[in-house]
Amino acid sequence: MDNDSFRHYGHMFVDWVADYFERIGELPVKPPCDPGDVRTRLPENPPVHGEPMDRIFKDFQEIIFPGITHWQHPSWFAYFPANNSPPSILAELLTAGIGVQCMVWQTSPSAAELEEVVLDWLRQMLGLPEGMTGVIQDAASMATLVALLSAREKATNFTANQKGIQSPLTVYASEETHSSIEKGVKIAGYGKENLRYIPTDEKFAMIPEKLEEAIIGDKKNGFHPACAVGTVGTTSSTAVDPLDKIGTICRSHNVWFHVDAAFSGTAAILPEKRWMLDGVEHVDSFVFNPHKWMLTNFDCSAYFVKDEGALIRTFEIHREYLKTRVDTEVKNYRDWGIQLGRRFRALKLWFVIRSYGVEGLQKIVREHIRWAEMFRDWVEQDALFELMAPVPVSLVCFRLNDGRAEGQLNELNKRFLERLNQTGKMLLTQTSLRGKYVLRMSIGARLTEEKHVREAWDLIRSVAEKLVR
Amino acid sequence: MDNDSFRHYGHMFVDWVADYFERIGELPVKPPCDPGDVRTRLPENPPVHGEPMDRIFKDFQEIIFPGITHWQHPSWFAYFPANNSPPSILAELLTAGIGVQCMVWQTSPSAAELEEVVLDWLRQMLGLPEGMTGVIQDAASMATLVALLSAREKATNFTANQKGIQSPLTVYASEETHSSIEKGVKIAGYGKENLRYIPTDEKFAMIPEKLEEAIIGDKKNGFHPACAVGTVGTTSSTAVDPLDKIGTICRSHNVWFHVDAAFSGTAAILPEKRWMLDGVEHVDSFVFNPHKWMLTNFDCSAYFVKDEGALIRTFEIHREYLKTRVDTEVKNYRDWGIQLGRRFRALKLWFVIRSYGVEGLQKIVREHIRWAEMFRDWVEQDALFELMAPVPVSLVCFRLNDGRAEGQLNELNKRFLERLNQTGKMLLTQTSLRGKYVLRMSIGARLTEEKHVREAWDLIRSVAEKLVR
Repeated sequence: MDNDSFRHYGHMFVDWVADYFERIGELPVKPPCDPGDVRTRLPENPPVHGEPMDRIFKDFQEIIFPGITHWQHPSWFAYFPANNSPPSILAELLTAGIGVQCMVWQTSPSAAELEEVVLDWLRQMLGLPEGMTGVIQDAASMATLVALLSAREKATNFTANQKGIQSPLTVYASEETHSSIEKGVKIAGYGKENLRYIPTDEKFAMIPEKLEEAIIGDKKNGFHPACAVGTVGTTSSTAVDPLDKIGTICRSHNVWFHVDAAFSGTAAILPEKRWMLDGVEHVDSFVFNPHKWMLTNFDCSAYFVKDEGALIRTFEIHREYLKTRVDTEVKNYRDWGIQLGRRFRALKLWFVIRSYGVEGLQKIVREHIRWAEMFRDWVEQDALFELMAPVPVSLVCFRLNDGRAEGQLNELNKRFLERLNQTGKMLLTQTSLRGKYVLRMSIGARLTEEKHVREAWDLIRSVAEKLVR
Repeated sequence: MDNDSFRHYGHMFVDWVADYFERIGELPVKPPCDPGDVRTRLPENPPVHGEPMDRIFKDFQEIIFPGITHWQHPSWFAYFPANNSPPSILAELLTAGIGVQCMVWQTSPSAAELEEVVLDWLRQMLGLPEGMTGVIQDAASMATLVALLSAREKATNFTANQKGIQSPLTVYASEETHSSIEKGVKIAGYGKENLRYIPTDEKFAMIPEKLEEAIIGDKKNGFHPACAVGTVGTTSSTAVDPLDKIGTICRSHNVWFHVDAAFSGTAAILPEKRWMLDGVEHVDSFVFNPHKWMLTNFDCSAYFVKDEGALIRTFEIHREYLKTRVDTEVKNYRDWGIQLGRRFRALKLWFVIRSYGVEGLQKIVREHIRWAEMFRDWVEQDALFELMAPVPVSLVCFRLNDGRAEGQLNELNKRFLERLNQTGKMLLTQTSLRGKYVLRMSIGARLTEEKHVREAWDLIRSVAEKLVR
């Protein structure tokens, strides 16, 4: 493809994306698509000869696009959001165009230095302690794994890298913690048996006294407590673990304290929500995802550490082919995580923060929270529904409850969710809280307006009434 | 930013990228930039109010761009290439615009099914065995870690995930293997002490007899050999380990056989280079990076496994909030690797393969190899230079050797490389082969033409002559 064709299709695709945002509200959020529908329309073998972009784009529109689940839809209330934004998309275009690989400072100085600056902006925006240093990881799963590995090394005086784990190390997280903690514990070689799930209170937040009991018990039994993970905004219900108490316990027992604030961390840019991070000064590592609720395209996970030396010592490897003249003067991010190769992801973050400004981002997040509180009030005031968890940020957990026996409610709500999502007019997902099947109304897509939340509630009410009658 | 502004800047940025490709050849490959140059020009605090895109783009051009190392430069001969291409950039634009997150089938059916189809296209293009299944990982470091974890689980009958490693497992790779093997061995909890570096022959390829000796010795000493890594195209010199012999040994000792073909794997699309993969039928897992030499934007690493069940069993985690109605009928790629969240990376691969066709890609790769062979001949025919390794694909390892004592050559070549790169007219990097400091001429950027290789050689000769006189 020559440069002129690139211009031509580039303009066309930019317009297609702009048009997409104008019509997205009318599309079904989740496509009416069955397994195999797309695959069977694609050839089994690669083309021998090059094909014109017109034909490729036509197939994109006719085969691929109808099978897309629209994460940017204004009625996207599923999982957590992964919102993008015009400035972020524009930055992704430049990133793709210049195509640099940011493994070390030398392989793109401005990418490395912009990452350093923008991550410090984020640190300030969230009110993380001075002296914490940030680095972009691709996803919170990865950042949490990086934290678990750093904790492993610190607990073994950096010998596990050399010898493996010689005597059992334990990890602690609430029973509501994300699946990535278990995944990381397995990958890092702790063994799932050494992961302790700490009970939660009525708000689904970790009970710190139970954490301390577990640590003391493990120590007595010859285990070495290595890491505790606090969650700010659990996946099921955005419960907030009490960082201050957990942090104090970790300090007194010399346990690495990692905080997973993947979704809810963004809310800490609001002064009225900063309480969620009270106690963060005790933290050894902290992750939140601008790619969830801060208008920055996936993937972009912001990971902060107190002791960058411990991080680097965990991951650094010296090879002649990677050495540069300035290695002692610069940050070479290849040593700050697992991947060697790295995309230039700081650019989109810089575009987003500058384009919206801190106030602009606060305004958006504040509105999402306001709508969630409005929705929570509707649920509470309606006899047909039951609120299933507090609403600290923008997720409302609720279920249909028409008074029938508890044993029948899970099945009822499963059917309810299916009916709702079959309309194509919105998408919700589910979770389980103390064994109860719960619907999650998660607000945070960029294009969502108050009217979409109101329409969602109207639809929820009408589907519910039909179902229980 | 409203939709009209997005159109406006989108068009502008597309044109900027197109212009960039037209003028890139005149830019210094590596910017004349010192540590801190970029950082000190950026504000320490995030902006409170949103800023216009004009100003952001101006700063991009004036502050960021001058500190970019130009990986897409026609005279990029450093590291390995990470080439992009117009169809790939266009696909990245669409990917960023629709902003889907591909953790499970439901979160974008066509992304999941396109990934399945396109990875099978790649399997066919490389001549990997039927029945191997592919999945996109972000980088080869990650794919190799995934392989090491799968091997760990298989060797322990899937108990390491539960209990950690209970008795020492060993891993084998050649002394020329990539740093990511050591990194993965550490992360997965094997311990670096249990990584055996196998000696290499005069071509820097693993000596299979030495591998078998090591395995047998370890077994005698109570170790459990778990995984051997073969490299097709080492980072230092693109040496090719003999897969057939290694594979036979792995089979007979029940050792997981992983192949890292990160860069050179792309060459296997050429019938005349397919010999590099002879024996690949013995392989349990295989990785190569379309984001290096196949015109697909970083990141996009293609990982293939023989037993997808073992892969899934290593990584799957069931949580209510991730369940979908179709889980038993579809591929949910969240269970095929470490990250939960996943970008829609199959799209760019599909655009690239269709746009160039297999023949088009072959033609490009074949030219790169031809120029490398040409360059190798020049080196061999010039008394001032010494060829330091065979040239199986498109990397030429050489050094300046004017006949002075061996002990002085490393220092001389260090200075030589610095002088060359200071010209800004090309970028080479170095490696070490048996303690000898070696320059790497790596050919594979999309915009490189024969004339750039000729110009590089002329420059190399003239800088060398000035240096030794």
